[in-house]
Amino acid sequence: MAFTKIVLIVEYDGTNYHGFQLQSELPTIQGEMEEALQKLTGERIRVIAASRTDAGVHARGQVVGFRTRSLLPPSTFVQGLNHYLPGDIAVKAAHRVAESFSVRRSALSREYSYYILNSLTRSPLRQRLSYLVTRELNIDAMNQACQALVGKHDLASFASNLGVEIKNTVRTVYRAEIAKESDLTVFNMVANSFLPHQVRNTVGALIRVGLGKMTVDEFHSIMEMRKIGQAGPTAPARGLCLMRINYPHPFEGAS
Amino acid sequence: MAFTKIVLIVEYDGTNYHGFQLQSELPTIQGEMEEALQKLTGERIRVIAASRTDAGVHARGQVVGFRTRSLLPPSTFVQGLNHYLPGDIAVKAAHRVAESFSVRRSALSREYSYYILNSLTRSPLRQRLSYLVTRELNIDAMNQACQALVGKHDLASFASNLGVEIKNTVRTVYRAEIAKESDLTVFNMVANSFLPHQVRNTVGALIRVGLGKMTVDEFHSIMEMRKIGQAGPTAPARGLCLMRINYPHPFEGAS
Repeated sequence: MAFTKIVLIVEYDGTNYHGFQLQSELPTIQGEMEEALQKLTGERIRVIAASRTDAGVHARGQVVGFRTRSLLPPSTFVQGLNHYLPGDIAVKAAHRVAESFSVRRSALSREYSYYILNSLTRSPLRQRLSYLVTRELNIDAMNQACQALVGKHDLASFASNLGVEIKNTVRTVYRAEIAKESDLTVFNMVANSFLPHQVRNTVGALIRVGLGKMTVDEFHSIMEMRKIGQAGPTAPARGLCLMRINYPHPFEGAS
Repeated sequence: MAFTKIVLIVEYDGTNYHGFQLQSELPTIQGEMEEALQKLTGERIRVIAASRTDAGVHARGQVVGFRTRSLLPPSTFVQGLNHYLPGDIAVKAAHRVAESFSVRRSALSREYSYYILNSLTRSPLRQRLSYLVTRELNIDAMNQACQALVGKHDLASFASNLGVEIKNTVRTVYRAEIAKESDLTVFNMVANSFLPHQVRNTVGALIRVGLGKMTVDEFHSIMEMRKIGQAGPTAPARGLCLMRINYPHPFEGAS
């Protein structure tokens, strides 16, 4: 029987989930998506994410792929899944793709943003999607430090040891910079792929630079160690958002 | 015994509150603030808001005033109240003011913003603070309609009848315009003061204009009726945020 391959662009507020990946008895993005797909198609469908996000991490442009026997048009996947999904997860678009397309292997790069609220007081309107740093940050020093990340480097120092063996810790970073967006300080990082906790450990170290607790040279020395778990502390999940996955060609067809 | 007059700049996510004003047995912003003040000072303090917000409406810059026997410095009011307040309410600054100062009567103008998410699909990361409109809006027509609001006018048509008699329905509008802020469509309105549901009824009518269900001329005719309850429908509270209160002089002293 013929299968169709579909990819979904998915946005979620990760606050109430134990990450993307399925875990028995715990709410996960994958679990919610597979349940909604079963309700819509009647099939038991396994989905794959382009970039698995950790517990509490958000996404604006996660890409989720799966194979289905259903012949529903992509636009019906959008409307149908949004009907069954909880309010904090939404499908923004759906596309039919070639059988050879893989949401992971076909991806050229992933874009993450980390939102820091640099303010004397907490912000009720920002708290779900940002991390509060009350002391003033030296943005110039942080930008100086993170420029060294751009290029092809062994970034082992910025990975956490989560019990999974990482064979290759070399990554190509296309962009790493701090920008101001209204009252938020945002760290944007684009790379071919990411090591476990890479963005949050990088942000943790950059905040130390911004607070004057670590020099730019010390940040670079940590990077040069090329040893798992050297940078940190791991910044909280609430500030992190998967923004976008880039592929060689834009998706075609109905959204 | 001597009293000191204090004003607080307050931010809140109104989602879980039945508005600013005290209601017995229901969670309100006023109730939470008075409870936190009692814990901090030991006094039973009555607070007054510059602009009372309705159930579900948010604030970035609400101004709250009260008199106290306490001699705590303003900075301690900030830190102490933020310790006792729930996470969705925060004091951003505190100032000591003259006895003659009134958060309501001294105010020159109030600024409100209404956030519309004009998108085909809902947005989990935006849903708490915006109203979703799925069909495309004609922003130019909406801007043309709302320009007529600027100036001194009888705006009765945009007020809801909430059972409170309104003696004077003339208001001076300093600004009324639609702007784009990233993926949001924002209606900004600045006026000396606002009638009940004024912004939400204005937005309801503007959305009808934006969808082509009402012409710009019809919008102006409704305004000319000068009769309570002509404009609408009342747009949902979740999109509305009290941004700022303007006074003749900036507040002085410690934040």
